[in-house]
Amino acid sequence: MRPAALAAVAELLELAPYGDPGRLHTEGRTVRAALEDARDQVAGLFGVRSRQIVFTSGGTEAVNAAAWGATRADPGPVVLAEVEHSAVRDASARSAPVVTIPVDGLGRIEPSAVDDALDRCGVEYARAPSVVHCQWANHEVGTVQPVHQVVERCRAAGVLVHVDAVAAAGHVPVDLGALGADLVSVSAHKLGGPPGIGALVVRRGLRLEPFIVGGEQERARRAGLENVAGAVGFGAAAAVLAGPGHLDGEESDARRWTGRLASLAGSVAGVRVFGDPVRRLPHIVCLGIDGVEAEPVLLGLDQAGIAVHSGSSCSSETLEPSPVLVAMGVDAERSLRLSVGWSTSEADIDAFGRSFAAVVAGLRDLRT
Amino acid sequence: MRPAALAAVAELLELAPYGDPGRLHTEGRTVRAALEDARDQVAGLFGVRSRQIVFTSGGTEAVNAAAWGATRADPGPVVLAEVEHSAVRDASARSAPVVTIPVDGLGRIEPSAVDDALDRCGVEYARAPSVVHCQWANHEVGTVQPVHQVVERCRAAGVLVHVDAVAAAGHVPVDLGALGADLVSVSAHKLGGPPGIGALVVRRGLRLEPFIVGGEQERARRAGLENVAGAVGFGAAAAVLAGPGHLDGEESDARRWTGRLASLAGSVAGVRVFGDPVRRLPHIVCLGIDGVEAEPVLLGLDQAGIAVHSGSSCSSETLEPSPVLVAMGVDAERSLRLSVGWSTSEADIDAFGRSFAAVVAGLRDLRT
Repeated sequence: MRPAALAAVAELLELAPYGDPGRLHTEGRTVRAALEDARDQVAGLFGVRSRQIVFTSGGTEAVNAAAWGATRADPGPVVLAEVEHSAVRDASARSAPVVTIPVDGLGRIEPSAVDDALDRCGVEYARAPSVVHCQWANHEVGTVQPVHQVVERCRAAGVLVHVDAVAAAGHVPVDLGALGADLVSVSAHKLGGPPGIGALVVRRGLRLEPFIVGGEQERARRAGLENVAGAVGFGAAAAVLAGPGHLDGEESDARRWTGRLASLAGSVAGVRVFGDPVRRLPHIVCLGIDGVEAEPVLLGLDQAGIAVHSGSSCSSETLEPSPVLVAMGVDAERSLRLSVGWSTSEADIDAFGRSFAAVVAGLRDLRT
Repeated sequence: MRPAALAAVAELLELAPYGDPGRLHTEGRTVRAALEDARDQVAGLFGVRSRQIVFTSGGTEAVNAAAWGATRADPGPVVLAEVEHSAVRDASARSAPVVTIPVDGLGRIEPSAVDDALDRCGVEYARAPSVVHCQWANHEVGTVQPVHQVVERCRAAGVLVHVDAVAAAGHVPVDLGALGADLVSVSAHKLGGPPGIGALVVRRGLRLEPFIVGGEQERARRAGLENVAGAVGFGAAAAVLAGPGHLDGEESDARRWTGRLASLAGSVAGVRVFGDPVRRLPHIVCLGIDGVEAEPVLLGLDQAGIAVHSGSSCSSETLEPSPVLVAMGVDAERSLRLSVGWSTSEADIDAFGRSFAAVVAGLRDLRT
């Protein structure tokens, strides 16, 4: 969490830890004001109107809500890229037949492949899909998708489109007003806000059945007492990023650091960098390491004070191959994901450089 | 929020605001330990094993997950009391035909009415219901239901049973081990924990389809990065309540205060107390006030520094009559809900006594 987000959460908890923003009494109005200020801040970062923001318990719930609302309104097949996050894949597959869009070896879809998928829906299901899901950028390898062209094609075809911007938001400029998608999912913790809060951004005029029901919160679009402290932390992180030049500055730092990470790692024999080398998120590097498993590398780096990820970004460390890497046609058993963020320093990159080659060499020696 | 919960949240945010408990690195293991400690504390309060606790974003999500899981596993009619919370009613009605159990004028169901409802399912749908929902106690009038007998009858009939214990948990002893229900929903903020966290308590051996999908968190029963700070606050509040004699002491204080509130309010002409006068939650008083709307009373009391509720407990202040009071057959337009809690003092009750009669009299004068 960014210091500004941490401070905002702490301040809200001190000021009004108890108020229900749905109430008319003073305590309720106090937290209502804090909640709406946070909504304005989040809307500001993404270039939309405040009332388009529906706070959720995170990116995963936002994606589930998008998949639910789209298919309840119009049950039919669903189109998604092979490399979508498991939240998109699982929330879709449980309630609708899925038509997938393939990716190339860099994890990128072709815009024209969307038209092919729409055609396949026509042939196989005699109708247009309920919704097309397209990630802004991939959560594992960082490849940025041609999301504007995808949205344009869907809107032209009159098909609902949901963009999973969880991995991208806060790391590259995400102007949702300009994008014009029907639904966009974002998460606070991915951009330095607290865990447990996210948002579904809904196009003006679009009404879908809520996923969580039983109360009139969030303009009757998401039931349950609002997590105001979480929203306030999300808002504070968004406000930092929306400051003049701030996101650009962080993006350029992150690109420099991941460039160094990729070149340090790539200088070790049998180590490759996955994903698109140009059209990529600034803060993620995904490595394939020949001859050693990801987990011991992770633990070796952990001993050197470096936290890295193996497997996908949103489940427990798993021994199953990543569906993203399988879709890209690369050996998926031995991938390691490095991320940098607002708190990264040059010294952190140096520390990786000192440790990585030795950890990999040590593990390879054990096998010979 | 209780001070202990506030302190626990603040400490977690300082210690490890960033760790993903699904990760193997040091930061991940640190927050994993905090999350599992919190789970132990919550399980301890409710007399169940830790692995039975599935953390959710609140009571509303827990109820939605119970309704979803039960009907997905076995689609069919659903039985619920007329006075269930809107989360239970709405989550049920959107995916299944509903058979309701009536209540008496105090808002209480008869245990034998459960058998009648099971019979009606047999007659009308030629099968047993997918699930019976029964609240532990009512959220608006505080009436405690014969929940142990309801669970017993459902288990004897081999029918899944979900207990909404959101209003009761933390205010009366809630021993879920002894209850033996299949599913129980609880919320942290109702017992002095943070907003935005709750739990679905699942009977050992019961596997249902998760409501939010796309990740392996919570033993693959609820996807999405865990709100560890929220869970830790929930755990701390639960640990306070589980201390020797603590819940009993709070319950007895609350009964004394709500007794005084009821008698102070009842001494004003045309004011009645709704709900069961004996089998009731200790901390809620629901008043009917003849001749004046609830909202101006609420605002008048707010000016005197007293926060009370009108309408139902989980939606924005609404002008629609409460379905709970309608089911009880009482005039539902002018109800006011008073709650006491761990932070209430004798002076708060005195303040209500000084203001209430004057506020009501002033409003009645305006109408004559």
